[in-house]
Amino acid sequence: MFRELQIQTAKRREFIDITRLISDTVQEIGDGLVLVFSPHTTAAVTINENWDPDVLHDFLLFWDQQVPKAFPGFRHGEGNSDSHILTSVFGPSTTVMVHNGKLKMGQWQGIYFCEFDGPRMRTCWIQTVAT
Amino acid sequence: MFRELQIQTAKRREFIDITRLISDTVQEIGDGLVLVFSPHTTAAVTINENWDPDVLHDFLLFWDQQVPKAFPGFRHGEGNSDSHILTSVFGPSTTVMVHNGKLKMGQWQGIYFCEFDGPRMRTCWIQTVAT
Amino acid sequence: MFRELQIQTAKRREFIDITRLISDTVQEIGDGLVLVFSPHTTAAVTINENWDPDVLHDFLLFWDQQVPKAFPGFRHGEGNSDSHILTSVFGPSTTVMVHNGKLKMGQWQGIYFCEFDGPRMRTCWIQTVAT
Repeated sequence: MFRELQIQTAKRREFIDITRLISDTVQEIGDGLVLVFSPHTTAAVTINENWDPDVLHDFLLFWDQQVPKAFPGFRHGEGNSDSHILTSVFGPSTTVMVHNGKLKMGQWQGIYFCEFDGPRMRTCWIQTVAT
Repeated sequence: MFRELQIQTAKRREFIDITRLISDTVQEIGDGLVLVFSPHTTAAVTINENWDPDVLHDFLLFWDQQVPKAFPGFRHGEGNSDSHILTSVFGPSTTVMVHNGKLKMGQWQGIYFCEFDGPRMRTCWIQTVAT
Repeated sequence: MFRELQIQTAKRREFIDITRLISDTVQEIGDGLVLVFSPHTTAAVTINENWDPDVLHDFLLFWDQQVPKAFPGFRHGEGNSDSHILTSVFGPSTTVMVHNGKLKMGQWQGIYFCEFDGPRMRTCWIQTVAT
């Protein structure tokens, strides 16, 4: 099963919890794996805590300092090399188990769409495979 | 096939070689893929050299400086934002091939459970899919 | 379907576009997933823009400063701890969808073999699974 989700982002850098979107999509498969894939080169997918919003605050704070938008020597004309770098650090996709039509994840885990060059209308692809 | 492993970690940051645990588990499947998944938000999974222990020493040294526990501006009350950050850098899972019931990996590769906020009793999930 | 590719790298750190190599390989499967896996501990796989070569220039510039070859305190006798670190940051593999025998990726995405300790003759493994 393949699905394409639409995600409207609101900031240049932003972590959007898409756990519910994914879990709604995998209900029809019984047991399997689901690949959550960002088809963009300046947006990624990751899994992390979705309980305390301060975790996301600290993510943004840390990465703003670690990979700033302006960096001496950057040549890429679009001015978003930082976004490309972060996309490879976080990775374009994640794979999660599905048991009985439900995402099998840890208690505190959520799936995040990582916007690194927004705001934009983004897509996110989902592909399931039965186990 | 799904399995849950128990892993007792001993330090706050630690890389534990779980290659043997995984290879013992996949013997019963012939050919396939195995997803090794950490259901935690402060522990990850990676693949790297498991020959010279100095590689792990250098990993810990580098990341202690790159992502220190204390960072100006961190708000997360649990004081482990560094652990969450490292979990997304390394990633929560890895996927490895299984051929004839054996892990197909490079000669120097091992699978590591990455503890970033221990010591704790952790779990690690394994899901196989036939190819 | 399993395939082993040979890749000759030319520099110590280098990003080599292997999209065409992978797409040629998956034509014979209809719909599925393809795992692209580096069996090395100093070479990784990532997905990023393959249009403007300045993106790769900026990648190399950034990571040379962020993870330099020489780092105070490194012990690993081979002197390539930086290569091991970068391999875990980028990750040893990526998983991509295949629809109708074609890689399903974003318009600007390419698959890169990431050399972090070349030049060497490298191998890259490909495993498909039907969906």
